[in-house]
Amino acid sequence: MKVFKKIDEIRKYIKEQQKEGKTIGLVPTMGYLHEGHLSLIKKSSEENNITVVSIFVNPTQFGENEDLDQYPRDLERDVKLAEKANATAIFASEAEEIYPKGYQTYVNVKHLTKHLCGLRRPGHFKGVTTIVTKLFNIINPDKAYFGQKDAQQAIVIKRMVKDLNLDIEIVVCPIVRESDGLAKSSRNTYLSKEERNQSTVLFLSLMIAKQMIEDGERHAVVIKKSIEKNIKNESLAEIDYVSISNIETLKEIEVIKGEVLIALAVKIGNTRLIDNIQLEVNDVN
Amino acid sequence: MKVFKKIDEIRKYIKEQQKEGKTIGLVPTMGYLHEGHLSLIKKSSEENNITVVSIFVNPTQFGENEDLDQYPRDLERDVKLAEKANATAIFASEAEEIYPKGYQTYVNVKHLTKHLCGLRRPGHFKGVTTIVTKLFNIINPDKAYFGQKDAQQAIVIKRMVKDLNLDIEIVVCPIVRESDGLAKSSRNTYLSKEERNQSTVLFLSLMIAKQMIEDGERHAVVIKKSIEKNIKNESLAEIDYVSISNIETLKEIEVIKGEVLIALAVKIGNTRLIDNIQLEVNDVN
Repeated sequence: MKVFKKIDEIRKYIKEQQKEGKTIGLVPTMGYLHEGHLSLIKKSSEENNITVVSIFVNPTQFGENEDLDQYPRDLERDVKLAEKANATAIFASEAEEIYPKGYQTYVNVKHLTKHLCGLRRPGHFKGVTTIVTKLFNIINPDKAYFGQKDAQQAIVIKRMVKDLNLDIEIVVCPIVRESDGLAKSSRNTYLSKEERNQSTVLFLSLMIAKQMIEDGERHAVVIKKSIEKNIKNESLAEIDYVSISNIETLKEIEVIKGEVLIALAVKIGNTRLIDNIQLEVNDVN
Repeated sequence: MKVFKKIDEIRKYIKEQQKEGKTIGLVPTMGYLHEGHLSLIKKSSEENNITVVSIFVNPTQFGENEDLDQYPRDLERDVKLAEKANATAIFASEAEEIYPKGYQTYVNVKHLTKHLCGLRRPGHFKGVTTIVTKLFNIINPDKAYFGQKDAQQAIVIKRMVKDLNLDIEIVVCPIVRESDGLAKSSRNTYLSKEERNQSTVLFLSLMIAKQMIEDGERHAVVIKKSIEKNIKNESLAEIDYVSISNIETLKEIEVIKGEVLIALAVKIGNTRLIDNIQLEVNDVN
């Protein structure tokens, strides 16, 4: 397992691999790997000769009052976990290498980033699309792997790849959950025992919404109210947003129809958690 | 000589060439080729196995009241000229191919674009950096060639390439001039006979500035005043800007020192022309 810290060095390594005809999969992460990440690494290692895991807690995607400093970091642990999941190389660089003095170029997806998390975290997606573009240019992968947990991120990146004519296939992998339904996240480590107990309310709310739709409910507002009510039952939970949107535009919808994203952001204590489900409703009218 | 209109087709062609180990040079243009473009094509054909000339009058880099509709176009003529200059392929696509429905991703260089032409043409450079990123991703060149006439454009693109970790060498070629000093430009075709006569004032003003510096003048304001006075002598000339800036930051300077860009934008009648010189002053204090 190779660990690279410098852009020039990993670029050289990749070029050597590509000269030998090897295919490259990239799994971009902020480290502190959990089973969600590991599922992406495993998937990539099945589909590519080389799997590069990038580990970089990207400052430009954190807002001023967010958890950049506090975000958990443990490279040694990550290297071991990535290796076990069949990664071939780690690219773990520092902010000075990625954003040297004078840095000033940003990639922005204009409309899709205005909804959901984009509304609550201005600048967040510009940071994400910029770092992902940079990683794509450094690693030059055939395929890149993202988790469905960050549903909006996956949709935004797919749009960016299409718009900028990047010759990379984006693979989105299912959410990996704890046995009680909580979506795996590096931020789950922030939760106290009581907060951890209450954090199941996200998945539970999504399951209630799904059941309502299966039972015939088609009014988004009714479903949202039910989700909100359920979340408010938890003493430590504070709703950031409850969204039911069209999966292509991420615009809020009134009537459940076609491909729909139900997405939540909820603060449990000080920890902001997100979760989502996608479903397709094709009623015959 | 191959002419491609579709992204998928030229991408396929390029991949075949690269598989054979051939190097790719890209000359991005808006067509209506003149000797400035041809010098870039010749340079590229000397340095690469394959030279692709892209021809696309990019709508996103034109302002609302600018000359997008009027901009001269003649693909047949361009193909002949490019072939004579040893181009291997033309990529001439339409706006619907480049910016399909739903397009919404932009690349922006934040600071360098706030000066000079960026001040006068808001959004212009965002259009340029976006289309150039797309062309880079489609053509995947080893080197790309730009003219020194668009000095700020070359500086902005170099910054973008560095910031986004694009693995492409940017080659900037000298301005090609008419015998009376006017910088070659597709927009020169707009000029009436009288306007054409007066248009030499740009180069003349730059030469006066250069002479002043060679004679020891170090106050930018004195040199600018002299340039402005000279331009105002011409009845059809209207100054857009006269700039003396640091070549790295493009910020206006007060004292001539180090690497300096003297750049002009002047309207002659309705036609906006630009020109510039770069010089280095290293006084021993």
